[in-house]
Amino acid sequence: MSQSFDIAVVGATGTVGETLVQILEERDFPVANLHLLASSESAGHSVPFRGKNVRVREVDEFDFSKVQLVFFAAGPAVTLSFAPRATAAGCALIDLSGALPAEQAPQVVPEANSSVLAGLKKPFQVSSPSASATTLAVVLAPLRDVLDLQRVTVTASLAVSAQGREAVTELARQTAELLNVRPLEPRFFDRQMAFNLLAQVGTPDAQGHTLLEKRLVRELREVMAQPLLKISATCVQAPVFFGDSFSVTLQSTKAIDLAAVNAALEAAPGVELVEAGDYPTPVGDAVGQDVVYVGRVRSGVDDPTELDLWLTSDNVRKGAALNAVQVAELLIKDLV
Amino acid sequence: MSQSFDIAVVGATGTVGETLVQILEERDFPVANLHLLASSESAGHSVPFRGKNVRVREVDEFDFSKVQLVFFAAGPAVTLSFAPRATAAGCALIDLSGALPAEQAPQVVPEANSSVLAGLKKPFQVSSPSASATTLAVVLAPLRDVLDLQRVTVTASLAVSAQGREAVTELARQTAELLNVRPLEPRFFDRQMAFNLLAQVGTPDAQGHTLLEKRLVRELREVMAQPLLKISATCVQAPVFFGDSFSVTLQSTKAIDLAAVNAALEAAPGVELVEAGDYPTPVGDAVGQDVVYVGRVRSGVDDPTELDLWLTSDNVRKGAALNAVQVAELLIKDLV
Ligand SMILES: NC(=O)c1ccc[n+]([C@@H]2O[C@H](COP(=O)([O-])OP(=O)(O)OC[C@H]3O[C@@H](n4cnc5c(N)ncnc54)[C@H](OP(=O)(O)O)[C@@H]3O)[C@@H](O)[C@H]2O)c1
Ligand SMILES: NC(=O)c1ccc[n+]([C@@H]2O[C@H](COP(=O)([O-])OP(=O)(O)OC[C@H]3O[C@@H](n4cnc5c(N)ncnc54)[C@H](OP(=O)(O)O)[C@@H]3O)[C@@H](O)[C@H]2O)c1
Repeated sequence: MSQSFDIAVVGATGTVGETLVQILEERDFPVANLHLLASSESAGHSVPFRGKNVRVREVDEFDFSKVQLVFFAAGPAVTLSFAPRATAAGCALIDLSGALPAEQAPQVVPEANSSVLAGLKKPFQVSSPSASATTLAVVLAPLRDVLDLQRVTVTASLAVSAQGREAVTELARQTAELLNVRPLEPRFFDRQMAFNLLAQVGTPDAQGHTLLEKRLVRELREVMAQPLLKISATCVQAPVFFGDSFSVTLQSTKAIDLAAVNAALEAAPGVELVEAGDYPTPVGDAVGQDVVYVGRVRSGVDDPTELDLWLTSDNVRKGAALNAVQVAELLIKDLV
Repeated sequence: MSQSFDIAVVGATGTVGETLVQILEERDFPVANLHLLASSESAGHSVPFRGKNVRVREVDEFDFSKVQLVFFAAGPAVTLSFAPRATAAGCALIDLSGALPAEQAPQVVPEANSSVLAGLKKPFQVSSPSASATTLAVVLAPLRDVLDLQRVTVTASLAVSAQGREAVTELARQTAELLNVRPLEPRFFDRQMAFNLLAQVGTPDAQGHTLLEKRLVRELREVMAQPLLKISATCVQAPVFFGDSFSVTLQSTKAIDLAAVNAALEAAPGVELVEAGDYPTPVGDAVGQDVVYVGRVRSGVDDPTELDLWLTSDNVRKGAALNAVQVAELLIKDLV
């Protein structure tokens, strides 16, 4: 089919938005006209696409009836302001901000629950989950048939890029100051990020859980279609620029069949299983890649019903931009 | 009592050994003569103690009958070579290398199982556990009475100093190379450590567990006197110079009483509970301190039998040197 589509990317100058535009090009997404949108701050800048520089415009002035599909990658406030306009114009939307409720825009990870798309009504509205839920779903979905999953305990060590451009700049600045033995005044983060671990990303609620942790739990349950799955989540900020890492402990009701687990991961789309004895790292493996790396596959020291895994993925690419584009590739089959 | 003792420190020029000598001074440990020992490489160097420089000598040539107590902080091979000599000379020993079996030298964390010391025969032999097991025991022991602990799931993010001086130098070197955009050839670590997370510290066994992880499980069970406690451990190397951090999820058989947990931690020796909403970090809180910091105390998102905690402690000080000195303070009461 040679049908092509007019597309808009809101937040095109951001960490996720720029990668999204790159991926549309790399994967030869059938784009007719591409509209790049951001705030007034970067309106007038341009972003390269297929050898040309595409001018960025202000989202406020955009007429959504010009496009058939829009990606929202500019934070929840922007989604909440402009999604209704897009939908009113009959435009399909994929939101990366987590702002829309499940009833309106279900969370979709193609490797885990693409069947959800078949039930959607036009204009399509889909959410691409947080990078943590996306990464976990890519790996846990193929294990559904080989273990009776009861409980997931995860410590997510997030890259600073999970908080956008400013966070990346700040980690670099802090590191340089410290190496030059200059006094450090933290900006952006509430304390020293370089050579440190921050155990809390965002403000916790009265129970002590952060929004990111609650999103991880809610979105992973939704994508796995296991609303009662027990999930314990701790999200930590690590002094890593790009690439999230996950220490995952799973509980099954029965003894884990490690050979079956390995075979399922070996065969799973979007997963790269590293050899036993080796292990993947964000910098050396995940960054720039389209797969979630899995290593350290083992059962408990003396609990055969426990399965331990280490995952790492490019939070901006596999965790966000690529997942959204994969969803779009499925959606456009029904957009015609 | 004004009794004082002749003491030897093997590995006195190392990360742990130097701190140990400092702590003996800080805590006014009743030292008569202090003998500092290391390999031939640093024999002749000196280390400050009570305003004087104490010359370091070769352990090979040392006559252990000169001292009543020796600390071994020079790795398992050195302990295995020289512990028999020390014991034959009637000298009490505290080993920090993990080389000695539990039957010979029980693992002791004073805050958790000091009663074990009463059962020892002379010459006393005690092990100070790995920094991970020590830190966890300090926090979990006071919780024994307020929850029915069934399962501990821990992801330990270890500081590079856990691997000694060379590791510290290498993280600094790598970071400087990267900030100066020079090509990186990793030394000491098998790959890039700066701005990265290494999911495996040491070589895993056939089941996929590393020695550090197995030590953590074994030692924590021993110190908690819960040989059947289910423990899942993942030890990760983080780009942090000093201070280990632990993401801990506990399972109890009954609903967690958070007020009782907080009260127990508030009252526990060696523990500093940070306020709800705040969180401790290795760099900002733990380093240089004599306590384990605990934060992010919360029960599961919707599982009241789950308790989540974040711990951080100075691996060299609280995790190793201070624990050994605390053991020594108890031992000398019976050395006379
Ligand atoms: N980074 C990740 O790993 C990741 C992963 C999954 C999901 N997400 C989500 O993706 C979204 C973007 O994150 P990011 O990391 O790319 O952030 P970022 O690097 O800070 O970029 C933010 C983008 O949003 C635009 N924007 C901000 N305020 C705007 C406004 N009022 N009107 C129009 N555009 C506005 C910015 O445009 P200007 O240049 O004009 O300021 C920029 O293009 C967020 O919802 C985030 O939660 C991020
Ligand atoms: N670092 C931690 O956080 C930590 C925590 C808990 C336990 N530990 C344990 O404490 C011990 C020391 O660790 P570290 O981190 O202090 O290591 P380190 O900084 O590398 O220091 C090693 C020390 O051992 C000495 N040594 C090495 N080989 C020797 C030999 N053949 N004969 C005599 N002395 C020798 C070194 O002396 P030279 O100067 O002569 O080489 C140095 O004093 C290890 O068993 C480690 O597992 C460390």
